[in-house]
Amino acid sequence: MSSGTSTTGTGRAPATTPTPTTALSHHTLDAVYYRGRSVVDDILKPGAKPDFVREAMFHIFGRAFSEDELTVVNAILITMMEHGFTPSAISTRSIYMSAPENLQGAVAAGLMAVGSQFVGTVENNARLLARIVSTPADGQRAAAEAIVDDYRARKAPLPGFGHHLHRPDDPRAACLLQIGAGHGLDGAYVKALRLLSAVIDEKARRHITINATGAVSALLGEMSIPVDLMRGFSVFGRTPGLIAHIAEERERPSARFIWELVDNTIPYEA
Amino acid sequence: MSSGTSTTGTGRAPATTPTPTTALSHHTLDAVYYRGRSVVDDILKPGAKPDFVREAMFHIFGRAFSEDELTVVNAILITMMEHGFTPSAISTRSIYMSAPENLQGAVAAGLMAVGSQFVGTVENNARLLARIVSTPADGQRAAAEAIVDDYRARKAPLPGFGHHLHRPDDPRAACLLQIGAGHGLDGAYVKALRLLSAVIDEKARRHITINATGAVSALLGEMSIPVDLMRGFSVFGRTPGLIAHIAEERERPSARFIWELVDNTIPYEA
Amino acid sequence: MSSGTSTTGTGRAPATTPTPTTALSHHTLDAVYYRGRSVVDDILKPGAKPDFVREAMFHIFGRAFSEDELTVVNAILITMMEHGFTPSAISTRSIYMSAPENLQGAVAAGLMAVGSQFVGTVENNARLLARIVSTPADGQRAAAEAIVDDYRARKAPLPGFGHHLHRPDDPRAACLLQIGAGHGLDGAYVKALRLLSAVIDEKARRHITINATGAVSALLGEMSIPVDLMRGFSVFGRTPGLIAHIAEERERPSARFIWELVDNTIPYEA
Amino acid sequence: MSSGTSTTGTGRAPATTPTPTTALSHHTLDAVYYRGRSVVDDILKPGAKPDFVREAMFHIFGRAFSEDELTVVNAILITMMEHGFTPSAISTRSIYMSAPENLQGAVAAGLMAVGSQFVGTVENNARLLARIVSTPADGQRAAAEAIVDDYRARKAPLPGFGHHLHRPDDPRAACLLQIGAGHGLDGAYVKALRLLSAVIDEKARRHITINATGAVSALLGEMSIPVDLMRGFSVFGRTPGLIAHIAEERERPSARFIWELVDNTIPYEA
Repeated sequence: MSSGTSTTGTGRAPATTPTPTTALSHHTLDAVYYRGRSVVDDILKPGAKPDFVREAMFHIFGRAFSEDELTVVNAILITMMEHGFTPSAISTRSIYMSAPENLQGAVAAGLMAVGSQFVGTVENNARLLARIVSTPADGQRAAAEAIVDDYRARKAPLPGFGHHLHRPDDPRAACLLQIGAGHGLDGAYVKALRLLSAVIDEKARRHITINATGAVSALLGEMSIPVDLMRGFSVFGRTPGLIAHIAEERERPSARFIWELVDNTIPYEA
Repeated sequence: MSSGTSTTGTGRAPATTPTPTTALSHHTLDAVYYRGRSVVDDILKPGAKPDFVREAMFHIFGRAFSEDELTVVNAILITMMEHGFTPSAISTRSIYMSAPENLQGAVAAGLMAVGSQFVGTVENNARLLARIVSTPADGQRAAAEAIVDDYRARKAPLPGFGHHLHRPDDPRAACLLQIGAGHGLDGAYVKALRLLSAVIDEKARRHITINATGAVSALLGEMSIPVDLMRGFSVFGRTPGLIAHIAEERERPSARFIWELVDNTIPYEA
Repeated sequence: MSSGTSTTGTGRAPATTPTPTTALSHHTLDAVYYRGRSVVDDILKPGAKPDFVREAMFHIFGRAFSEDELTVVNAILITMMEHGFTPSAISTRSIYMSAPENLQGAVAAGLMAVGSQFVGTVENNARLLARIVSTPADGQRAAAEAIVDDYRARKAPLPGFGHHLHRPDDPRAACLLQIGAGHGLDGAYVKALRLLSAVIDEKARRHITINATGAVSALLGEMSIPVDLMRGFSVFGRTPGLIAHIAEERERPSARFIWELVDNTIPYEA
Repeated sequence: MSSGTSTTGTGRAPATTPTPTTALSHHTLDAVYYRGRSVVDDILKPGAKPDFVREAMFHIFGRAFSEDELTVVNAILITMMEHGFTPSAISTRSIYMSAPENLQGAVAAGLMAVGSQFVGTVENNARLLARIVSTPADGQRAAAEAIVDDYRARKAPLPGFGHHLHRPDDPRAACLLQIGAGHGLDGAYVKALRLLSAVIDEKARRHITINATGAVSALLGEMSIPVDLMRGFSVFGRTPGLIAHIAEERERPSARFIWELVDNTIPYEA
């Protein structure tokens, strides 16, 4: 607490920040509202087919997503759900084994892996696409070339392209872009992605795959998702994937095995 | 590392735990599989309508949920998504303000509030219902009475019943149970919940609402969800709700205001 | 926000909870106070030797720890600092590799492993010791026997005893108890621990080691640490240990290796 | 798991990453070692005065800190321990109220606030000081002027300087620098800080305080702490502070009050 010159006062200094407001929810004695709609009388009313993903998008972004957009959102979330024994899943299982009374902590630990090294690439690719999209049409190729030259000069991997395993093409990326195209999401951002891809292939003199990261950032761009919130799709998509690892850990535990394996494999060296 | 009697050895001791396996996923050079189904060729194949919640349930529980079950699951997840400026949302906003580069950490912090004091009540109610369900039909009323007597004797709140605000009835609970009934989920667990409710009202000589917790635990019981995984529905449902708080925090920041408000309101007292 | 019957009102309902207070800190324009002492003029004043552990104990527990107690606290924290490639350290390294911009998240993930399966045993042992200590002297042996009989009947491991590796004795436990004895901490709780140990050995007809958990809980009992806060010592002790894993991960990365090792070792099985 | 072209194979592909090593710890049947020193026979041996902070520094940085350095480290950690009802403490208390069985999760949630907006300023200031220090002596003033001009032109706050409350001087900063000077830590980094301060005052034509952030980063620079690990001092220092908030929350709960206060104060607005 702050207490001006007094050390025992009430500390109730005038707030310097104006009172904020929220549009997310409010409630009355007999109703709960999400963004002004009654949960019971509007969202879950008899005959309505409740759709968590649709409501989640409305709740986060404050606008109704079209059925086409929702199809693409569902596809993106599904591809993000599971990636095997990644650092994220290993952490979730390790924490769950240590504190099974605390399922939420195990999920939280795994979600923290949704950081710069993996999901950050979606955002980085999205920024490149945004740069191309915001360039007048006749300058877009030059913009793409400048980007590729810059990354090549720095020998930096270009976010959204290349895959250590899937060649010549990342099956999920192609699939997502195809679903997008089938639902009207193949506008300026997807065009920018394909332009970037063409320039990369030219300069590299070989085909380099568009990976899932690239496809996702272009599709999220098509839906006007702010770059700083794109990571939210990974967080949302990963959550049930990590819960699945916990469910499996209860039946087929692997965390203790991982502990022994790692501890026995990494030797001491001063 | 462990190194037997040596202090500089390789430490590669024989593992004492047999190698576990996973059914969640595997991949080949050109395909990724979730529980044996190809993501591209099965789950996201042309014409299939991708449904994240359906895939999430299959992934976590290893079985296909019926359309009726999925309707109820969607309704449950929607009711869990948002509850206003709870400790969970306050934590997410506070952490996001402190480290906006780290959206996932802010969600993780908020999810950690899905603990015993709130969501634990779902599990506790579920255990009571399971006790009644596992009792032969002619003993169920006595089982319910024994439970209510026990809680009344301890003056403990009976999980799944009562609400500090919503009276006489929690609108979400009634709505969820109605959706369940409309989709075939009104079997032994819902019956046990209603039996418990009737006994409570009798003993209290007034009506005490079935709250959302009670409805959710009965419906999850109907779908044979293990009690120890019920918390996963809260974690999943809360995740987009917390992302929505982050999205709003970017536009209408409240975390700094909360900090000032709290620091100025709680006085120092030795 | 709650808003009574209105949906757009200010929502400022009278708080039902009285305003709490804090004794931890307050500040004036020119000074910061911890529990009523000025950080600059009292704690860090010229000539004072600042001691973080001493101040931490004072801050947490609100009383000055004696030099003897502080010696034991330092020894306990040191033994808790590092345990190799545990689930905790594996999680910290995995999260750090995924989000190196977010050191605090990596430590947070690792700390979440300080749960029931490892540190919970300190609390469980402490509760057994408290039961013996609170028994009149002439009934303590019978109390210890009842405890051991109960665990043996349930074939449950008795918390604080036994070690998978260190036999006949856990070197850290003996060392900690010796340090405690050398600093006046060998009262009722240590006596209860030794009584329990004697009864265990008798009933098992062989020597079973007192492990570090047992020694720590007896010593914390001697210092009147509430059982529910004992876990705080593990959290505090582990924190620099996990930071050390991060520091090493920057120089000798192992998290990517762990990922590959685990992913390659655990096979898919439907 | 990855499985080459097979979908059911063992998946044991040759690891592409060489096996890493660790210098942090190893153990034998009768001893545990930290960085090659036996915990029992070296660190806690009879007569040795165990010092957690000293061991923590040795463990993290792999070198013995001098007594002078340890005095400064203790002082820094003490100043970082407690800052009142910050976003960090609010989160810890909110999570603890929600899941009191999970003390470690509450601490973890609060630590996640040690992010860019608060502690990031230590790192940013440290980078400025490093730039000045690495400039030949006769160019340092010009380097400092270039830094100040740049921040003034961008109207950006210069990390390490200014305070919303403490004027003309931050009492903790002056105190820490004095302790540093009294223990031989007033070399190139502190000189760079004072040079920067002089230039700032000249250009602003008034005195702007060196704040605690500035003092800490200069002192950590004097001890050759890598900038990317400086955040670890905040994490370490905050940990017992957050445990103290938990200890107080058990006796004088405030989290529920904070929840009501915030929920009642922030109105709904579409």
